[in-house]
Amino acid sequence: MSDLVADLLAGKHSALARVITLIENRSSGYREIISDLHQHTGTADVIGVTGSPGAGKSTLVDKVAATYREQGQTVGVIAIDPSSPFSGGAVLGDRIRMASNAGDMDMFFRSMSARGSLGGLSTATTDAVTALDAFGKDKIIVETVGAGQNEVDIVRTADTVAVLVPPGSGDDVQMLKAGILEIGDVFVVNKADLDGADRTVQQLREMLQGQSGRPDSGHHGATELAGDHGDASTDAADDEADESETWNPPIVETVANRGEGVEDFLDALANHGAYLDRTGRREGQARERFAAEIRTLLREDANELLVDELDRRGGIEQYVDAVIERHTDPYTVVDEVLEPLRECLDERRDGN
Amino acid sequence: MSDLVADLLAGKHSALARVITLIENRSSGYREIISDLHQHTGTADVIGVTGSPGAGKSTLVDKVAATYREQGQTVGVIAIDPSSPFSGGAVLGDRIRMASNAGDMDMFFRSMSARGSLGGLSTATTDAVTALDAFGKDKIIVETVGAGQNEVDIVRTADTVAVLVPPGSGDDVQMLKAGILEIGDVFVVNKADLDGADRTVQQLREMLQGQSGRPDSGHHGATELAGDHGDASTDAADDEADESETWNPPIVETVANRGEGVEDFLDALANHGAYLDRTGRREGQARERFAAEIRTLLREDANELLVDELDRRGGIEQYVDAVIERHTDPYTVVDEVLEPLRECLDERRDGN
Repeated sequence: MSDLVADLLAGKHSALARVITLIENRSSGYREIISDLHQHTGTADVIGVTGSPGAGKSTLVDKVAATYREQGQTVGVIAIDPSSPFSGGAVLGDRIRMASNAGDMDMFFRSMSARGSLGGLSTATTDAVTALDAFGKDKIIVETVGAGQNEVDIVRTADTVAVLVPPGSGDDVQMLKAGILEIGDVFVVNKADLDGADRTVQQLREMLQGQSGRPDSGHHGATELAGDHGDASTDAADDEADESETWNPPIVETVANRGEGVEDFLDALANHGAYLDRTGRREGQARERFAAEIRTLLREDANELLVDELDRRGGIEQYVDAVIERHTDPYTVVDEVLEPLRECLDERRDGN
Repeated sequence: MSDLVADLLAGKHSALARVITLIENRSSGYREIISDLHQHTGTADVIGVTGSPGAGKSTLVDKVAATYREQGQTVGVIAIDPSSPFSGGAVLGDRIRMASNAGDMDMFFRSMSARGSLGGLSTATTDAVTALDAFGKDKIIVETVGAGQNEVDIVRTADTVAVLVPPGSGDDVQMLKAGILEIGDVFVVNKADLDGADRTVQQLREMLQGQSGRPDSGHHGATELAGDHGDASTDAADDEADESETWNPPIVETVANRGEGVEDFLDALANHGAYLDRTGRREGQARERFAAEIRTLLREDANELLVDELDRRGGIEQYVDAVIERHTDPYTVVDEVLEPLRECLDERRDGN
């Protein structure tokens, strides 16, 4: 175990910050560190917060973090902007927000930006959560802008996902239709003092009712949710699965900048956490996440191996030349490059 | 070479249809077929047509195909709806549209739906284009709904990309900002008789001027275009690259259902084709496409190998168990699974 890992486990925030920088930059050694830290994880409560820009995520997250701190809980926040490859804006945001928690050493705030691929950012988020969990943070908040597939992947590192909706925006209801509705465990209509908030709550309620009775409502990474729940057949499925409690996502109204509704929001999060524990779904979700992580890492690492192998064979250009000349074709090229791997795996299979 | 391949090369439409079904379903044997067909490709002109739903793509594509036929060219159309996993609607569309070309055996129309993954759909489109090209179609039109990343990937199988914009839609101008602007070689404002068409043409013109002087305008798969062309530095780059002709995407106005502007559109496509030939960019784009295809196939196949390897080792669940118990962690699991592959490649490297 490295000194850095030891320092992190001993509670040094500077070590935690350095580890997250290594994770963000994919610097050499980060994998060993995450491997060492994994055995110290499993105690944190991870909360994902997403929603369109302008929904008031940062304000709400800051209030939530401050309230947890008042309750004596330690908190780590990771804010992720998948759309921005540069961290300039995020860093500025950091400073402003750090200042509001200045001097509180049990409040750790960090932004991460998309330096590598977005797939990589989702893996990096998982690793950063591992670091915060091993450090001993009680509550970890993963905050991400937007509502695309990448944001969905990022926010799925959480046990409980909160989706923020600003009032009076038809666009946002559209956005909800486009996939984010399925991942929300708690919905927040923030800026609930603005015109249109009631209508937004009403619209949300109708959309959620169209989905209610989802057989698996602890549904992170639950691809089966992509199906057509909400039609008549769902009720039948529900009767059969009567012994398994379902979760109906509540809608909470907040005015985050005045702190209104924050307690209600925390109650909703706590209720969902209790539900996860009561039904065993916390572990179920963790299993799904680990399986997905293993598959993603396998894919990424194998891809790296193959890029190296292509380089060893003199690079891709000679193959492209041959394909252009019609001496070979992409499928044959790929078979040729993969052949040694297949042979090798076959030999081992026979050997065993 | 199989009988099916021989029949396709002999010009039998029934064989072409069967091959595309094998491609769409990823049925066993399709890879060998594509490998056999590849050497017969390279003569077709491939045109991609994309744009938001309601822009009038099918109507325009039908008119374009009919006009090509009048000119004595053979035509193949592949229509792809990445958002629909089921082909019901598309098939209905087929029948209606097939009827309008009934009896014309040199007009081949086929829709493909997203049965597998979207990545797979992009590969399947490439394969279908290979089949149509080997068959001897002069013009191949790849039509896809929408404007997301997946649609962009699909339409990149084309030499020339046309982007359709319906008039008077602020949303569509937004959509253009979101990445589709970079891939259009020809822009079409269809339904140009509707209110707002002039304004849309004007908006488009302004956006394209913001981008003009792009150093690489034969830009399919050109990731460098994701950068910030359009600022002052572009002019400097332009002066340096003076010998290389650039392409300024024209904006064509059509009223497809009345056939108006279709000739202008065909002229624009022909101009772009001539530009690709004159500058050598047709081959450059083909090279980029083949390189991307090889990388994609390598990734997909390697992933399949690893899924098999995980199964051979007793499945992923035992690893998830060990990770949940904190006996191991995802990175260690992945290293363990990949270790034989690394060793094998190292041995070959030493052996060579």
